[in-house]
Amino acid sequence: MEHCSRSIGIFDSGLGGLTVMRQILEELPQESITYFGDTARVPYGNKSSDTILKYSIENSNFLIQKEVKALVVACNTASAYSLEHLQETFSIPVVGVIEPGVERALEATHNGHIAVLGTEGTIRSGAYQKQFARMKSGIQVTTIECPLFVPLVEEHFLSHPATKMIVKEYLAPLKGAGVDTVLLGCTHYPLLRSFIEEELGDDVTVIDSASSCSQKLRSILGEASLLANQNVIPKLQYYVSDDANRFKERAQEFLETSIDEVRTQCFGVNVE
Amino acid sequence: MEHCSRSIGIFDSGLGGLTVMRQILEELPQESITYFGDTARVPYGNKSSDTILKYSIENSNFLIQKEVKALVVACNTASAYSLEHLQETFSIPVVGVIEPGVERALEATHNGHIAVLGTEGTIRSGAYQKQFARMKSGIQVTTIECPLFVPLVEEHFLSHPATKMIVKEYLAPLKGAGVDTVLLGCTHYPLLRSFIEEELGDDVTVIDSASSCSQKLRSILGEASLLANQNVIPKLQYYVSDDANRFKERAQEFLETSIDEVRTQCFGVNVE
Repeated sequence: MEHCSRSIGIFDSGLGGLTVMRQILEELPQESITYFGDTARVPYGNKSSDTILKYSIENSNFLIQKEVKALVVACNTASAYSLEHLQETFSIPVVGVIEPGVERALEATHNGHIAVLGTEGTIRSGAYQKQFARMKSGIQVTTIECPLFVPLVEEHFLSHPATKMIVKEYLAPLKGAGVDTVLLGCTHYPLLRSFIEEELGDDVTVIDSASSCSQKLRSILGEASLLANQNVIPKLQYYVSDDANRFKERAQEFLETSIDEVRTQCFGVNVE
Repeated sequence: MEHCSRSIGIFDSGLGGLTVMRQILEELPQESITYFGDTARVPYGNKSSDTILKYSIENSNFLIQKEVKALVVACNTASAYSLEHLQETFSIPVVGVIEPGVERALEATHNGHIAVLGTEGTIRSGAYQKQFARMKSGIQVTTIECPLFVPLVEEHFLSHPATKMIVKEYLAPLKGAGVDTVLLGCTHYPLLRSFIEEELGDDVTVIDSASSCSQKLRSILGEASLLANQNVIPKLQYYVSDDANRFKERAQEFLETSIDEVRTQCFGVNVE
């Protein structure tokens, strides 16, 4: 197969990476995509760095076997703990969600005070803080752990008053803190964007790493001459590590499209 | 080692089983316990039956290697999907949380209309419905999935107004339904007991499967002459599959005792 007609591999702990996939479909509609959701081990945000690294390597090896031409780590926690390792290990381009998000936040900020919302794992990894420091000096970064956002999204409590209350509580430290830009450091969080924006008010710009990631991917594929031909019909394939039906149902709703098949790929579990 | 001085093995997907352990410590203070929390793969409630069965077998094999004299499946979802298999596979007594909870609920009900609250996995397994039917005819069982209760407990939102709001919403179908007994079909739920009781009012009895399980265990160990001698100093050991420090911190708080060591046992994940 010609390299450029191979698919883009995306992995996430579950559904959240579909926000990234949706942006990639919009930005690069001619590309084929192989998506892997690690639904047998979701969520990643409250697990340790070693465990996340192991899971990320397994997920990547699976996609590499599917001959993907590039790898998108569509999960902030996995990006935080595994991106460098994956970039060193594999010869194809590997794109995470942290660096693109940080780039966009730096473009957006006027006063240099940026807040990052993320899971416990992402925030405690220090990956965002390090990336900001690497790209620009003098930026003040405020981080906020929002561990309940992922379960609220997974359970469709998207516009529920309890969710609004929890958003209010998590964002309380930002009141009067002088932050002008807020980076959504988890691929689930764009689904709570309206509550977050409402709570922050009009003076704060909310940046979503999903869209920055797809722009980054486009430029990397372009530079490596790996963009798909316009005349190829793109193919979308979905794999999960558990409960394909549940994923299919939610993914169809989420991507607003019909999905033919979601296949199951188990690994790491040997029964007797 | 004499059989009766061996420890009782308990496993759960994470922290929730500690509500069962606490009851066992109270009911059987002379017993040694080996606890395993599968924190690398928590939660179980939204995963498939096959995956839960595999995880349960792995957890049990680990405890069997530790020479436990009995096995407690301190997780309702795991009990629902694996108890029969584990009882057939192992020669030591295996106790779940479903049957003891059902027994207690049947003792408590006057009008024969009982509600069971549980995770998606537990409720959809039909395990409670089947157990009620097996033990008594003519019982009306209303089941309610409460998928957000586990994350709310794990994140310490125990007395938060958002939690109260979510409890209210999940329990709304019980208003005026004529239920006189509510069974907490998840080991995390006793931590939300006060909100649940407040919402249900004084006329409804709330049953907690943790305490029924420890009573069942006591009688099974007694019948099998496996109760520990009074003059042996009991030993409590803790293992998790991920992030021992985080578990230690929360478990100490939860059991209101100090824990010397939590050890890590990984399985099922092979890196490269």
